[in-house]
Amino acid sequence: MKRKLRYGMVGGGQNAFIGAVHRLAASLDGQIELVAGAFSSDAKNSQTTGEQLFLNPARVYGSYAEMAEREAALPADERIDFISIVTPNFLHAPVATTFLKAGFHVICDKPMTLTLKEAKALREVVRKSGKVFALTHNYTGYPMVKEARELVRSGQLGKILKVVAEYPQGWLLDKIEATGQKQAAWRSDPKKAGASCCLGDIGTHAENLGRYITGLEIDELCAEFTTFIPGRVLEDDANLLLRYQGGAKGVLHCSQISCGEENNLNIRVYGTKGSLAWSQEHPNELKFCVKNEPARTLRRGNGYLSDAAKKFTRLPAGHPEAFIEAFANIYLEAIAAIRANLAGKRGGPFDFPTVDDGVHGMAFLETAVKSAASNARWTKFAKI
Amino acid sequence: MKRKLRYGMVGGGQNAFIGAVHRLAASLDGQIELVAGAFSSDAKNSQTTGEQLFLNPARVYGSYAEMAEREAALPADERIDFISIVTPNFLHAPVATTFLKAGFHVICDKPMTLTLKEAKALREVVRKSGKVFALTHNYTGYPMVKEARELVRSGQLGKILKVVAEYPQGWLLDKIEATGQKQAAWRSDPKKAGASCCLGDIGTHAENLGRYITGLEIDELCAEFTTFIPGRVLEDDANLLLRYQGGAKGVLHCSQISCGEENNLNIRVYGTKGSLAWSQEHPNELKFCVKNEPARTLRRGNGYLSDAAKKFTRLPAGHPEAFIEAFANIYLEAIAAIRANLAGKRGGPFDFPTVDDGVHGMAFLETAVKSAASNARWTKFAKI
Amino acid sequence: MKRKLRYGMVGGGQNAFIGAVHRLAASLDGQIELVAGAFSSDAKNSQTTGEQLFLNPARVYGSYAEMAEREAALPADERIDFISIVTPNFLHAPVATTFLKAGFHVICDKPMTLTLKEAKALREVVRKSGKVFALTHNYTGYPMVKEARELVRSGQLGKILKVVAEYPQGWLLDKIEATGQKQAAWRSDPKKAGASCCLGDIGTHAENLGRYITGLEIDELCAEFTTFIPGRVLEDDANLLLRYQGGAKGVLHCSQISCGEENNLNIRVYGTKGSLAWSQEHPNELKFCVKNEPARTLRRGNGYLSDAAKKFTRLPAGHPEAFIEAFANIYLEAIAAIRANLAGKRGGPFDFPTVDDGVHGMAFLETAVKSAASNARWTKFAKI
Amino acid sequence: MKRKLRYGMVGGGQNAFIGAVHRLAASLDGQIELVAGAFSSDAKNSQTTGEQLFLNPARVYGSYAEMAEREAALPADERIDFISIVTPNFLHAPVATTFLKAGFHVICDKPMTLTLKEAKALREVVRKSGKVFALTHNYTGYPMVKEARELVRSGQLGKILKVVAEYPQGWLLDKIEATGQKQAAWRSDPKKAGASCCLGDIGTHAENLGRYITGLEIDELCAEFTTFIPGRVLEDDANLLLRYQGGAKGVLHCSQISCGEENNLNIRVYGTKGSLAWSQEHPNELKFCVKNEPARTLRRGNGYLSDAAKKFTRLPAGHPEAFIEAFANIYLEAIAAIRANLAGKRGGPFDFPTVDDGVHGMAFLETAVKSAASNARWTKFAKI
Repeated sequence: MKRKLRYGMVGGGQNAFIGAVHRLAASLDGQIELVAGAFSSDAKNSQTTGEQLFLNPARVYGSYAEMAEREAALPADERIDFISIVTPNFLHAPVATTFLKAGFHVICDKPMTLTLKEAKALREVVRKSGKVFALTHNYTGYPMVKEARELVRSGQLGKILKVVAEYPQGWLLDKIEATGQKQAAWRSDPKKAGASCCLGDIGTHAENLGRYITGLEIDELCAEFTTFIPGRVLEDDANLLLRYQGGAKGVLHCSQISCGEENNLNIRVYGTKGSLAWSQEHPNELKFCVKNEPARTLRRGNGYLSDAAKKFTRLPAGHPEAFIEAFANIYLEAIAAIRANLAGKRGGPFDFPTVDDGVHGMAFLETAVKSAASNARWTKFAKI
Repeated sequence: MKRKLRYGMVGGGQNAFIGAVHRLAASLDGQIELVAGAFSSDAKNSQTTGEQLFLNPARVYGSYAEMAEREAALPADERIDFISIVTPNFLHAPVATTFLKAGFHVICDKPMTLTLKEAKALREVVRKSGKVFALTHNYTGYPMVKEARELVRSGQLGKILKVVAEYPQGWLLDKIEATGQKQAAWRSDPKKAGASCCLGDIGTHAENLGRYITGLEIDELCAEFTTFIPGRVLEDDANLLLRYQGGAKGVLHCSQISCGEENNLNIRVYGTKGSLAWSQEHPNELKFCVKNEPARTLRRGNGYLSDAAKKFTRLPAGHPEAFIEAFANIYLEAIAAIRANLAGKRGGPFDFPTVDDGVHGMAFLETAVKSAASNARWTKFAKI
Repeated sequence: MKRKLRYGMVGGGQNAFIGAVHRLAASLDGQIELVAGAFSSDAKNSQTTGEQLFLNPARVYGSYAEMAEREAALPADERIDFISIVTPNFLHAPVATTFLKAGFHVICDKPMTLTLKEAKALREVVRKSGKVFALTHNYTGYPMVKEARELVRSGQLGKILKVVAEYPQGWLLDKIEATGQKQAAWRSDPKKAGASCCLGDIGTHAENLGRYITGLEIDELCAEFTTFIPGRVLEDDANLLLRYQGGAKGVLHCSQISCGEENNLNIRVYGTKGSLAWSQEHPNELKFCVKNEPARTLRRGNGYLSDAAKKFTRLPAGHPEAFIEAFANIYLEAIAAIRANLAGKRGGPFDFPTVDDGVHGMAFLETAVKSAASNARWTKFAKI
Repeated sequence: MKRKLRYGMVGGGQNAFIGAVHRLAASLDGQIELVAGAFSSDAKNSQTTGEQLFLNPARVYGSYAEMAEREAALPADERIDFISIVTPNFLHAPVATTFLKAGFHVICDKPMTLTLKEAKALREVVRKSGKVFALTHNYTGYPMVKEARELVRSGQLGKILKVVAEYPQGWLLDKIEATGQKQAAWRSDPKKAGASCCLGDIGTHAENLGRYITGLEIDELCAEFTTFIPGRVLEDDANLLLRYQGGAKGVLHCSQISCGEENNLNIRVYGTKGSLAWSQEHPNELKFCVKNEPARTLRRGNGYLSDAAKKFTRLPAGHPEAFIEAFANIYLEAIAAIRANLAGKRGGPFDFPTVDDGVHGMAFLETAVKSAASNARWTKFAKI
């Protein structure tokens, strides 16, 4: 199939953050073009955004429902192949459901839904649709994260004993949602964000990262939520202890009120034979330590890395790649699956987060919310 | 002008490196689309490359000359707006000259030409053409490099005393040009690369970076070239001492045989009031030190930065940007100039390297080559 | 008083670790000389150690009891001024009690005793004795830790919200206590180490460090202990969530089975106005971040530091100090108190950990052990 | 010989820097005691210093000549075993000569003398005396520097191609010698410091470090001296290109006017098989890279290190050692040689810088001064 894929976007109007990120990621590799959008519930914002993106005004829609309907009615060689959903959380499920039912593939931001129940329902819709559904847990798109997973899978760390995952940020140290900052406003609003602010927005990335790298499943957890900033409803800081199936232990803490922290997602994994450490703010490096040997710093782009890391690398060593490339790697895998689907093949295996990962993420969130609500009592992981 | 700009590419076929980089950079922001190319002197390679890039086969040409002629003959709303030149060095001048004369704007890789004489001639062609000519000294596209320049310009470092610029790499430690590695083959061939390998390929970036940040002009220099690997003709290592106009001193060393180094361009600037340090492999940070105060680590994406840095930033703090974004910043400024030109305006000021920077770079190279050829004697900077 | 102080040592024979550290620290500043010792329960080991230390054989004793008795009988200008206790934990209380009652000042390694009850009893002995008692929580001796405390005290961090303290090590990943490694053997033996291995040996340092810097008192805690290595009785890994009085939250985790970690004590403190971070393995630096400003790296030896840090600095900036100097700072303060005491003055204030800190440390340990024993239930801090 | 060695000190009175460092280093290991001194040409300063150091006033002398004479007249079991010379440079040779002729061993600070001629004369005195003479090029005392040398010696770097050594400082950016700062005053005075300030004070350490690690000998050099601060006589910045015997190349630059730099001595060595990098401000680490393998970070105190590094290590891994310990390692080796000499044995081999290293250092200085004086012309290394 010698053509670029076409996509539309729901959300991502002016002043939005993640929509622009998705567009950068989608366009990077010259494989996809944006042709339609319902960028905002504010029609004016949506039109302006469309103009800035050089879209045909006829394909900038007033609502996602209209978009799904009218795009589905276009000829096959014009209409979008898939939709990117970059709205606040509460719209993920209804928008995804609408487009899946209209016959479109879906790439959706995380967390997948507002509740676990909603997540399971969406899973059913996806299964019935036969369409591709990808969730943008973008941090697993980094090549050195894939290398980390490969080190664990290949047994080079031995049995995993302990996992420490952190995700401190500081941008909500002031109550900026009261000043009209849109990103803060919806994330701190339970109706739009769900039952969690900090853990749902970022802690869920840390959990997903740990699971992606180690394959460990949480058995029970103890979650301490704190709302430090007066007047805020949802937590802006969360500290968790984890017990994994099989006996490993975990510490996961995340924060939005940690002064001076930017986007400091990082993880350390300790096994019986070795350990690894990776930090999102220095993503081209992976520290790897074998027992009784000097620590090694593995760097993206080198011949000594695994195929898993090499596959997702665009530039030679020392020419740093970063956030957009990792995000684009999720897109590349998702559209590979979409191309296979369009060609009537299964293809794969593909390396992107699926609706099952989304259900898992919501189960994690609900378990943590439940624990936090009971004074941080140890709580069994929710059934998924 | 509500449309994407259209461009063609000369060079950048399969197994090439920098062509793919230019394409990633050009496509990143959704402002430009690739519509034509003469990707290789090998017609098969060129066609295959065009197919992979979803190009109309009619616009994949057998030679750059044919491309210039036929594109110029296309209707204004179809033909390319500019050409990207990503060939080995020896073709830069003839290709640029051809397209400028055919009425196209040019974005060209560095070093600009094979010789200073050729560079001056090209400067004349550019001046007469009235077209935009941009040279991709991409490292000046990094936001924190722009912040560095702003710190110097605003006097926060005081009078500059000393500059240390380094660019060690290790990829030519083995004689890989003998194994058919294309990147190594043309860079080590005087007919294709010019009179210098190491300094021309990377040292020139270090010099350009220092000049961009400090504004200092070299008065004389002492250049020690070494060819460490037997059988190689051009130097694979160069160490220079610099005397700047006004009394500042400089050390510049670069290498392609420094084992374990990847692409470690870095610079330190010391003034009477403060100093700064920046390293390309960790581009989101800039170390800034004021006399008698603790060192500060300035990081991309923060509110405390200058407008110069903010303008070239896409992502929030902590969401790292890297090589491609910096490269794309050169493109963004160049196409802003091209859009202005197309609209009949001067516009600007624009922040991208021009043909004058290209002439300067070739003067630097010729001066260094001359010094090296005279047993590293101190040599006055060439007239430009 | 123009003379060096004289001291004796209990413990610290051949193959011991911490005894040698105390000796290096005590001798560093030329203020103290070692003149007596009961270095081991093995008389041969004790004599050999004494010889290596150039001691008069008459003052190398067969037991600490004999030593206390015979030193007390010496003339005032010969006998020791104080005793350093560097034995396994279970001997701290009896040895300290013996020497205090014999009229000697005491410098004692941590944790102070085997139990909280024993700690309180020792506190009574100290109070009645009128002698100086110092506990070597050596990490608070680092100048940059003192700077950190000063930043908090002076309000530059605002109200403290969150504290993350870590102390991972990896040296007990193999069951080396079974191979006769003496350090491992007693630390993993409840009779000699007490009810905790990992938390007692190192976690207690992390807790003490947090309290020293922030002044925060724990209100309740949840402690998860794990014994990862089969056949070991005490925990070799501990993860704690902390709730401080006043609403701040804490995460404290420590480990002896974290492959590749050496002695990685580190702490981060986040307040409403700023944050700080310090790591023991790079002790000359303190990261300090003020809200909305670039992070600063404060470095030992500079004029911009507080008097608190300057007082405990021997070398100019850039000439690194480390573990021994920090340890020696505890000694310097303790012997300043001893000199004052000998001169019949109160003196001070002195900056060293006291018997009250020892009681606090044992209360922390007992609370954590109690929580861990109840499946990591939240547990109120023990009365002290 | 079961006793501590006794030493005296010339220089090192109040407000001196390096004298205090020597005393810390000498006392650290409990092997040496200070018993005599001529600390200052100011008798009052000398007496006060002696009191602070608990010395017998009878052994605090008014001049070094008096000291040499009177100590030599003391009984063998009282008089000093060796002298430490910690004066400004111009006194090194006369003091050393006096004590060597009076029968004492000598530990002397660097640079060894004022001139090469003086250095050669001192070498003759040492040879005739049969005494131990140690020069405190203290940076070679670091265990990880010894590991670096071992890596080179054992061939793990292959043939050495390039050496980059740096030693930037910033403390002389202001003209503090005019304010009475004693350290600055004598170092910038040609009569007391010799023909060089920056290169003599610190650049000579960088050169010595490179030679110690690589064994390479300089064949010729090009030295650019600059005096940036008005009114200063000697250079405060020096940049050198080096050509080693056998074809390797070097860059060595040092500075005392580099704002924000503290004591940033560092070195990188690149060979055909591997490379290494070490930085004095983080002395417990050594970066080691084997071609086509991930970089390793070797850390002091680990079992995987060579015996050369292990021998000079006091503390376990992760318990950082630093400047004083490295300095003390020079003392330990020198006094081992002195003890052997006292016992009538040759002993060894010992690992400390000798009078031959001192002559070499002065030859390096004179060659550089000569080059600098001829407008940085390439100059052959002086005969030694």
